[in-house]
Amino acid sequence: MPDVIPDDSVGLVTPQLFHFDEPLTLRSGRVLPQYDLMVETYGTLNRNKTNAVLICHALSGDHHAAGYHSINDKKPGWWDSAIGPGKPIDTNRFFVVALNNLGGCSGSTGPVSTNPETGKVYGPDFPILAVRDWVNSQARLADRLGIQQWAAVVGGSLGGMQVLRWSIQFPERLRHAVIIASAPKLSAQNIAFNEVARQAIAKDPDFHNGHYLQHDTLPKAGLMQARMLGHLTYLSDDAMRQKFGRELKEGKLNYSFAPEFEVESYLHYQGEKFSTRFDANTYMLMTKALDYFDPAADYDNDLVKCMSRAQCKFLLVSFTTDWRFSPARSEEIVNALVQNDKDVSYACVESESGHDAFLMPIPRYMAIFNAYMRRVADDVEGGAR
Amino acid sequence: MPDVIPDDSVGLVTPQLFHFDEPLTLRSGRVLPQYDLMVETYGTLNRNKTNAVLICHALSGDHHAAGYHSINDKKPGWWDSAIGPGKPIDTNRFFVVALNNLGGCSGSTGPVSTNPETGKVYGPDFPILAVRDWVNSQARLADRLGIQQWAAVVGGSLGGMQVLRWSIQFPERLRHAVIIASAPKLSAQNIAFNEVARQAIAKDPDFHNGHYLQHDTLPKAGLMQARMLGHLTYLSDDAMRQKFGRELKEGKLNYSFAPEFEVESYLHYQGEKFSTRFDANTYMLMTKALDYFDPAADYDNDLVKCMSRAQCKFLLVSFTTDWRFSPARSEEIVNALVQNDKDVSYACVESESGHDAFLMPIPRYMAIFNAYMRRVADDVEGGAR
Repeated sequence: MPDVIPDDSVGLVTPQLFHFDEPLTLRSGRVLPQYDLMVETYGTLNRNKTNAVLICHALSGDHHAAGYHSINDKKPGWWDSAIGPGKPIDTNRFFVVALNNLGGCSGSTGPVSTNPETGKVYGPDFPILAVRDWVNSQARLADRLGIQQWAAVVGGSLGGMQVLRWSIQFPERLRHAVIIASAPKLSAQNIAFNEVARQAIAKDPDFHNGHYLQHDTLPKAGLMQARMLGHLTYLSDDAMRQKFGRELKEGKLNYSFAPEFEVESYLHYQGEKFSTRFDANTYMLMTKALDYFDPAADYDNDLVKCMSRAQCKFLLVSFTTDWRFSPARSEEIVNALVQNDKDVSYACVESESGHDAFLMPIPRYMAIFNAYMRRVADDVEGGAR
Repeated sequence: MPDVIPDDSVGLVTPQLFHFDEPLTLRSGRVLPQYDLMVETYGTLNRNKTNAVLICHALSGDHHAAGYHSINDKKPGWWDSAIGPGKPIDTNRFFVVALNNLGGCSGSTGPVSTNPETGKVYGPDFPILAVRDWVNSQARLADRLGIQQWAAVVGGSLGGMQVLRWSIQFPERLRHAVIIASAPKLSAQNIAFNEVARQAIAKDPDFHNGHYLQHDTLPKAGLMQARMLGHLTYLSDDAMRQKFGRELKEGKLNYSFAPEFEVESYLHYQGEKFSTRFDANTYMLMTKALDYFDPAADYDNDLVKCMSRAQCKFLLVSFTTDWRFSPARSEEIVNALVQNDKDVSYACVESESGHDAFLMPIPRYMAIFNAYMRRVADDVEGGAR
């Protein structure tokens, strides 16, 4: 942490656990008899409960989106660049709700939780979830908080998919949808990358078909490889060239198989760090939810028909060098909304940072995001709700 | 094999093993005391030995570039689309030489060979090679065949890197260089993909630090993953969309981690097939040679200065959707040649097949290749050599 908490930080925050007793029927047909959601909130809910903003996280995110858990934290929450006083998601005006999704590994019910029906850890028996299951669980969280309608639901990447799903699943329960660096469905190439990552995990002998906790081990090598590959696809070729080029760790080639180039060391470091902090079964689940997401499939594969259900206003943002979810994919959503005469704003932001750009405080991105969210806040406050 | 061998095939071919007793000092400083090269030739060497064309193979290629080894072969050599009577590399006019590179696993000396100094299989102790080492060994093969100057040296991808190296290492020993879908050096992103693939192999417990043969096993899972990832990067997003889209193997989602999408099954199939036919230590070596290739490094990182050494004429070809070795990378070479006033032809061919396009009989590609090689043959024959 910095010596003093910055003025534009939400400061010290404490997660809260919400327990839900009512069974949740999932897209797969399976039922979660009960579950917990780990939640953080920032800012104050207004009297009419109209200023709430829901943050949906991406593959490896969690409920800790902004601020610090303790004064010893080295880093703030994962989207601290966008959430805080005076930031685009301005906690002086909004009540912000961030949660760890079901199936996660940061406190919400997931593969590392105990299955109440067996008394054992779920592990690989935790049901594979679809994006709509998350949206259903988030709607119940809204009910619990007394929020009938979100001022906005906001997310990037897999988070953006949840936002899109919200807009057609509970069209009357959000006024604005902010979908960043996302896509209406994965391409075959996206699915293929996910499958290679899953194979790395599944083939790690320490994975034990997902029962690694019972074997008192972790599939670290597999998870490390999965993360190295993921990380590689979040960065652009340009970003990697600028960051690493062909620089050598020791200034010269060693003619050995140990990491020699800076880019190799960086990926090893990122992969290793991730392999001890994240749950492998959660990683498997999250990538499957990505693969499965295809809301238009229920509407004759017609995204225009699908988006006709939406009633909210939209902001979409994409980034020029994002090749994992390219601008063209965001534009498919924009075009489907335009064809439905929906109120949609769209910006493709110049950036060299690839998919990772959505987490970065890029000035033009922040300016656009900020302007839009001010409109959302004015809308809420002006409406005397 | 087809029922009858097609008229434009080189027909049944037989590889020959060439033994070299003279030690070869490698870029790493290590020395190969002796070695074998497995070679195939097609067509007839003319009296003046001026019509020889050298084929350089890519990562997983070998000496079997064209024709059939037996009438039971299901498939011809790996570049049969380009080599044969009437094809771009016309065996009615050229004497074609294809070899398995040193470090390979198809008969040339490599990790699966016996180290004459220890009497044991080399395995991971086989020296890591650089592209220049291959070129040196190929030059000795030319000496053995009595070929003072190649009419052309031809290759795609890693093969194209060998061609580039030939043009500056032995500038007077080739009249034409044909460099297809290649690059003057790998980008950080390329290196990162290679490192993820190597990690998949190295972390397979059956790899045993490369000593798998002594353990009577093969790191099949690791090699399969490496190949799945490689294959994925050889195809374009467009090609995968057209070939697989989001088609499901069984028409519906299973909510399981078994391959469900067609693209997953395809990659599994390709990976499994490769994991039993290819040597893992060779795969590691080949990817390192790719990473290391950077001929401009010896010329103050100035590719223009580097290419000033070349004396031959050049054809370069790239493919629009090749994102592994994009057209921009070929154009770096073209521009360096142009700045040196070299004779260079260049075409960027429209294709949806990604990097794999260089192995495909795409009409415009074949027409350009054919026209250029006719010029090469006319040059040789007209020169009364």
